[in-house]
Amino acid sequence: MTKLIALFRRPDDLDAFLEHYREVHTPLTRQLPGLQRLVVNRVTADAFGGEPEFVLVAEMHFADAASFKTAMRSEANRRLTADLKSFAGGIATVLITNTEEVG
Amino acid sequence: MTKLIALFRRPDDLDAFLEHYREVHTPLTRQLPGLQRLVVNRVTADAFGGEPEFVLVAEMHFADAASFKTAMRSEANRRLTADLKSFAGGIATVLITNTEEVG
Repeated sequence: MTKLIALFRRPDDLDAFLEHYREVHTPLTRQLPGLQRLVVNRVTADAFGGEPEFVLVAEMHFADAASFKTAMRSEANRRLTADLKSFAGGIATVLITNTEEVG
Repeated sequence: MTKLIALFRRPDDLDAFLEHYREVHTPLTRQLPGLQRLVVNRVTADAFGGEPEFVLVAEMHFADAASFKTAMRSEANRRLTADLKSFAGGIATVLITNTEEVG
């Protein structure tokens, strides 16, 4: 499985960020062709204490590398990327990963 | 659901790190009481180019906050944390999250 993992650092205005993420960015994400699951993880703490480095971790699941590539080349992804840059350009890290279920 | 997300930056010796993660750290992780799933995501690229900030993202899934707390207080977690510090002390970030399935 190919999974896109988006990590978001703390924005200046967390409430406005979360609202935009939920109301605007999530519906745009859902339009990606071939997206099997969208999982949103809200960070509550750093396990070793202190301020967590990230506030939100989003996972976009795709069946395989081919469907992921199709999604990345879509018009929906062009809109999604433009939105990401507009509200989280300086705080988002997006990783492409191969996912292995270990058990 | 409560999910622990561990992010690993690039170690000096990536092969040695991956071998230790697989052969030593993964079996220790499996001993956590109440662990429902362990999912390991190997980073292949940064979606926007350049060197990815992290090489590995591991997810530890727990049914709820209570079972997560029990796991954190266990002897197995004491051993797991000691091992983490021994091989990835300077490169690991571990986030506690509440997971929401968006669709």
